[in-house]
Amino acid sequence: MSASEKIWTAGLVVIGDEILSGRTHDKNIAQVASWLQVQGIRLSEVRVVPDVESRIVEAVNALRTSYDYLFTTGGIGPTHDDITVDAVAAALGVPVVVHPEARAILERYYADKPGGLTEARLRMARVPEGGELIPNRMSGAPGIKFGNIHLMAGVPHITAGMLDALTGTLEGGAPLLTETVGCWTPESEVAEILREVEKAHENVQIGSYPFFREGRVGANFVVRSTSGEDLSSAVDTLCEALGENGFDFTPGGI
Amino acid sequence: MSASEKIWTAGLVVIGDEILSGRTHDKNIAQVASWLQVQGIRLSEVRVVPDVESRIVEAVNALRTSYDYLFTTGGIGPTHDDITVDAVAAALGVPVVVHPEARAILERYYADKPGGLTEARLRMARVPEGGELIPNRMSGAPGIKFGNIHLMAGVPHITAGMLDALTGTLEGGAPLLTETVGCWTPESEVAEILREVEKAHENVQIGSYPFFREGRVGANFVVRSTSGEDLSSAVDTLCEALGENGFDFTPGGI
Repeated sequence: MSASEKIWTAGLVVIGDEILSGRTHDKNIAQVASWLQVQGIRLSEVRVVPDVESRIVEAVNALRTSYDYLFTTGGIGPTHDDITVDAVAAALGVPVVVHPEARAILERYYADKPGGLTEARLRMARVPEGGELIPNRMSGAPGIKFGNIHLMAGVPHITAGMLDALTGTLEGGAPLLTETVGCWTPESEVAEILREVEKAHENVQIGSYPFFREGRVGANFVVRSTSGEDLSSAVDTLCEALGENGFDFTPGGI
Repeated sequence: MSASEKIWTAGLVVIGDEILSGRTHDKNIAQVASWLQVQGIRLSEVRVVPDVESRIVEAVNALRTSYDYLFTTGGIGPTHDDITVDAVAAALGVPVVVHPEARAILERYYADKPGGLTEARLRMARVPEGGELIPNRMSGAPGIKFGNIHLMAGVPHITAGMLDALTGTLEGGAPLLTETVGCWTPESEVAEILREVEKAHENVQIGSYPFFREGRVGANFVVRSTSGEDLSSAVDTLCEALGENGFDFTPGGI
């Protein structure tokens, strides 16, 4: 397999009791996934684990060795339940140290805020020894990059800023291209067509996503490929087959 | 540990390329988590895996043996990318069979619909041999229960109906009780208080969830315990400590 054909992969560990209790609806899986697509990296697995060091260590070690990149969200704030840095350092077998640049950033950020740089806030300057910083334009406290691992915030708009700072810095492959065809029909009526079109196009996957809208049943068929040519060919074949069978379809999706 | 003290746990496997591509925002993690809380069962881990049999088998086997219950969402529909039943049967080492009752349900459901019970639709009557049905009041095709495993739909409102059908049928423990205290202050100013209150109350966990609203920074502190008494005591101590330190707090959360 040549370098250009390599499929780059990533794992994501979402850390936080608040997701596992149902209190907070996770938004980071979708935003990390979408961002990775654009970088030409495929999100291959997500694990959601509680704020328990041994559980974070286990997930981090499993995913950092299985995929090219590992991302984590959550647990890098100033409170006692923010234990991601300690857990990742334990997983890597390195000590936790205060990063001088992170400390300087926090000193500037909290200079004019009540209380200044307290001991709790200084927790946010701690990194696994050897870690680098991921800029945080929203709220001071940086993310952390250590080898193929990226520790990011749990609050989605802060995570978004960190992803933005990482844009273009990671090696990836050909982005996965997608085209959607929508159809006002139950997916079960179209199942055989989908199966045949996918079979006939080797480098193409088709996902079928049913919905119920405006009192009607329908489905979107998402065609995915790293090759634009294969993608177009599969979409054309699909639309032809849908048309020939009298289905009411819409290129671009419904 | 007496039976009444056992902590019942569950794992969840979310199956679907559409979640890992970022196309679909998962809603099942939060709804399964919230439902489990009410049943006295703690969601302990979630894994999101693609529509690839070996990956589903791996996750299902890891989680069904680690926790009291396993739930899956996604991949039980009629199309070629719906492979959950086959993957779970492979994980269990049993064949896939057509469940007569599921077939009867689908025959009734599709009797007056164009095409009737096609081969594709009949896929939704397939179960790992020995599996029982979970009623689906929304759209005919049932979920499947096999030992401690529960296979549910990916479409959230259908999953909701299946969870509703399972309500009260699973053995659980004392539900985790929660109370929230909101505070219009950065969580970093309160970190030390939270740590001390948690330390002083053994059977209690406190999570801190910062937010930015109406141009102001604040945080909600979620206090959790299976004991109502311990919970009240911790909440009282927390409110006292916040008050003594002049913080603007709101019992019940912001």
